[in-house]
Amino acid sequence: MSTPHKTAATAVPLHPLLAGRWSPRGLDPQHELTQHQLTALLEAARWAPSASNTQPWRFAVALRGTEEHAAVLDALVGFNRAWAHAASALVVAAAETHTPEGAERRWAVYDTGQAVAHLSVQAEVEGLAVHQMGGFDSERIAALLPEGVTPLVVLAIGRRDDTAELPEPLAGREAAARDRLPLEALQLPLGVPASV
Amino acid sequence: MSTPHKTAATAVPLHPLLAGRWSPRGLDPQHELTQHQLTALLEAARWAPSASNTQPWRFAVALRGTEEHAAVLDALVGFNRAWAHAASALVVAAAETHTPEGAERRWAVYDTGQAVAHLSVQAEVEGLAVHQMGGFDSERIAALLPEGVTPLVVLAIGRRDDTAELPEPLAGREAAARDRLPLEALQLPLGVPASV
Repeated sequence: MSTPHKTAATAVPLHPLLAGRWSPRGLDPQHELTQHQLTALLEAARWAPSASNTQPWRFAVALRGTEEHAAVLDALVGFNRAWAHAASALVVAAAETHTPEGAERRWAVYDTGQAVAHLSVQAEVEGLAVHQMGGFDSERIAALLPEGVTPLVVLAIGRRDDTAELPEPLAGREAAARDRLPLEALQLPLGVPASV
Repeated sequence: MSTPHKTAATAVPLHPLLAGRWSPRGLDPQHELTQHQLTALLEAARWAPSASNTQPWRFAVALRGTEEHAAVLDALVGFNRAWAHAASALVVAAAETHTPEGAERRWAVYDTGQAVAHLSVQAEVEGLAVHQMGGFDSERIAALLPEGVTPLVVLAIGRRDDTAELPEPLAGREAAARDRLPLEALQLPLGVPASV
């Protein structure tokens, strides 16, 4: 597979850490995360903003070669198991959606998305790739975690490997250009009532 | 007010765009966003990752001096109105939580958090500050938007102004060090069942 050209096509320049980030499936099965890298990823998540600084995000890290990695991998849908086995780490990102007293944290899921985004930006800095997966057996992943947290995504983290062999249709997707809705499609009008 | 020292205290270095980001309330009431900056912020959000590339995030932009800005400001809680009036832009971030056919997008809220995080990182690149607010009248904000989207946060975007006068307790918060839970508190164990 040739190295995909995946830089975002933007109307104005984005910072390279954002423009160059994408979610590969081809990962180097020999690569190992250093403790320094892992700490940097978690620190990035830790310092994300959250509603009233509630910091509802939680992370369960499984390094390749451990039984925890095997257990998380096994709870993925087959579509994801087909490639995510090569991830240097599988990380379950979960949210504490309620306080210990049972009150709902309305932004817990939203804020956990932010924390993972910060983690993903730092991954770019570290020369690592992150591919987030929603395709897993929620009950099985939840059973691996302590009570009181809701698993949201599993992150496959590793070093991109453009020579990795992927089954179709994944190989085709890996080589395809990234695409997004046009910028205008994301923008909503604000309808101000006549009385304002 | 002296310039707060707000760089994140981390066990290993984070990229400055992440380590230096925080959520000020003191904003320059004279600063105006350029179209270039606004486009860069929206492009950053646009190129965030999402579940199956569904891109559920939507943004309604109100520039200071417009009736839209006044309408969004007026729907904030008083605590936020006290300072957010100086924002160069108030941006409602909303999610399409369902497809047009009515199917739930399970990661719409999570993914919108990611998109806003990407926007916030690009804001740092542009020399802008972002302060996200959950304190607003949801029904009034929703009434300003088209049907079918759920407002999640309002972003106050502008240029930080350390000389801005803030009422207490906001002035005290502005000068205080940032703080987070310890890194260990974010990490969950994975309890692998004996049968695995």
